[in-house]
Amino acid sequence: MSRFWSPIVHTLSPYVAGEQPRIAGLVKLNTNESPYGPSPRAVAAIAAANGDALRLYPDPTSLPLRQAIAGTYGLDVGEVFVGNGSDEVLAHVFQGLLNHDGPLLYPDITYSFYPTYCRLYGITARLVPLDEGFQVRLEDYRQPCGAIILPNPNAPTGIARPLAWIEALLDEHPDQVVVIDEAYVDFGAESAIALVRKYPNLLVVHTFSKSRGLAGLRVGFAVGQRPLIDALERVKDSFNSYPLDRLALAGATAAWLDREWFDHHRTLIMASRERLTVALRKRGFEVLPSAANFVFARHPGRSGPDLAAALRARAILVRHFAKDRIGDFLRISIGTDAECDQLLAALDGILG
Amino acid sequence: MSRFWSPIVHTLSPYVAGEQPRIAGLVKLNTNESPYGPSPRAVAAIAAANGDALRLYPDPTSLPLRQAIAGTYGLDVGEVFVGNGSDEVLAHVFQGLLNHDGPLLYPDITYSFYPTYCRLYGITARLVPLDEGFQVRLEDYRQPCGAIILPNPNAPTGIARPLAWIEALLDEHPDQVVVIDEAYVDFGAESAIALVRKYPNLLVVHTFSKSRGLAGLRVGFAVGQRPLIDALERVKDSFNSYPLDRLALAGATAAWLDREWFDHHRTLIMASRERLTVALRKRGFEVLPSAANFVFARHPGRSGPDLAAALRARAILVRHFAKDRIGDFLRISIGTDAECDQLLAALDGILG
Repeated sequence: MSRFWSPIVHTLSPYVAGEQPRIAGLVKLNTNESPYGPSPRAVAAIAAANGDALRLYPDPTSLPLRQAIAGTYGLDVGEVFVGNGSDEVLAHVFQGLLNHDGPLLYPDITYSFYPTYCRLYGITARLVPLDEGFQVRLEDYRQPCGAIILPNPNAPTGIARPLAWIEALLDEHPDQVVVIDEAYVDFGAESAIALVRKYPNLLVVHTFSKSRGLAGLRVGFAVGQRPLIDALERVKDSFNSYPLDRLALAGATAAWLDREWFDHHRTLIMASRERLTVALRKRGFEVLPSAANFVFARHPGRSGPDLAAALRARAILVRHFAKDRIGDFLRISIGTDAECDQLLAALDGILG
Repeated sequence: MSRFWSPIVHTLSPYVAGEQPRIAGLVKLNTNESPYGPSPRAVAAIAAANGDALRLYPDPTSLPLRQAIAGTYGLDVGEVFVGNGSDEVLAHVFQGLLNHDGPLLYPDITYSFYPTYCRLYGITARLVPLDEGFQVRLEDYRQPCGAIILPNPNAPTGIARPLAWIEALLDEHPDQVVVIDEAYVDFGAESAIALVRKYPNLLVVHTFSKSRGLAGLRVGFAVGQRPLIDALERVKDSFNSYPLDRLALAGATAAWLDREWFDHHRTLIMASRERLTVALRKRGFEVLPSAANFVFARHPGRSGPDLAAALRARAILVRHFAKDRIGDFLRISIGTDAECDQLLAALDGILG
């Protein structure tokens, strides 16, 4: 606390990211990174961009990357916005598109950065409880509101809703912006990007951190009709002209275009997830049906904090949220099969 | 305009960065980049960080870079804040430290991003005119205010005030945050970082874009006492946990530690600036005394827009601001001596 702070600083409740310990040998299943390094084409493109050209500012419009993304979906470049990780994209979305007279609706159990953004931008939120099966229910969103944001699949549950459900939500809220945060969509859910041309109120947010294996490069994007993207551009150009550096631009563009790498590795991760889910259930765990690169699981015989601590003592990191309704769950990122086996062996030791 | 925008978006006046044309062969003297590529140690560090580790999130605290910077000044790591370019750092500074009941004071002629930040965060500003010699005057800041921000050297004039002047300003405003934006300080001005331990109200902002030759990597930092840095950390952790990617962290840390490269190249640029200043004056230009990596100059016989357009037609880009009092000036970044010679030859052609 300091008299030099702007008043808003006193009201903030900063987001706490999962641990990034600087210890070798850990099995790190706590922040939903890919167990596989990025496309070799991304590494090569970064190497080619690394040199004297770094003295020059990057393209402030990130044009080649936006062209690559737009091309995949048959969209115009003006329908794609990119940022320094999907967290920066989401920050601009909250400021530029989600601050209205009515409350912003989102699930009571969801990405825990949302309430932090609301405080930063003075947005009133109303939390909508998931049902007893941890599902988002359409009827619960039938209430006056200013806007809606939902991850699909949701986090940390991993549960996805089908595209028809998203479309019904959009049909019910034609006058509100509906943001679908698809950070995990590539691991088995349907993307709402297919609906962008049909719904002027739809914005879809993606990240390169999970299915592209590039959490360390900080690139995310949003797709929507031109007026929504214009709002994000206006905020971005009032904040930082050049959010993506030359290396991130080069690496992300090459990674995006390597469809083969992408499909191969997300398939591997989905297979490992199914294998891990079966193995956890065999050990008595309840595992929610996941369409993400993590599973959300609890054991009837052990509390969440106990299990997380016992795993940590065995050099295995998973994420635990000390929150109502989910306090006994662990969010376990899908590692390689070998890492999953280390987790299972540790659990066998802990559970006896 | 769209009904889906948050109301604030309608009020924004986005910053317009200098052109980043994608045309080869231009002499690009419009955005104050370094004419010299970065330290080879930075390039090597980036190459070493480029690979499978990109799948992992970067260190959210950017610790090695902050340690390197803190070490240079004999400060603690908690007295250094880093961000995705000094523009992002400044954005957090405006939101977290410059929004008070009284108006924010800054010069009427200065970095044109400041009014943009004020709009983004609803900050009331009062512009303080430079004197007729384009100098910042101490007495003009003797008025009730909430906070002060000043570039030193100022931009786009290039004129610097000595450290004793900054200290007098700090002494006169013990109850207000005073931000000194030192983007260009390494080209001949004195840094106020020497005063940080003495003044709890002082924050100093730097960039890697100019004197480190790394505009393309997007790294900036702020130095101040712990409560000021805490405010920036709280804003940052409410906005984006990981603003610096792994490559930027590695490259900036190595660049920072290569003191020899830094001193050699800033000396070269200062020598080229003095050479260009003499040559411009010989051609009848008024050139303001610059402590930056650019000069601000006007010719009595030709208007600023005319000269800028004539240079552009000869594939030489300089920056021109269509603003009161400075509409006839050109801001010319210091290139290599060969680039400065191309500029001079073009001017000889234009001026006859």
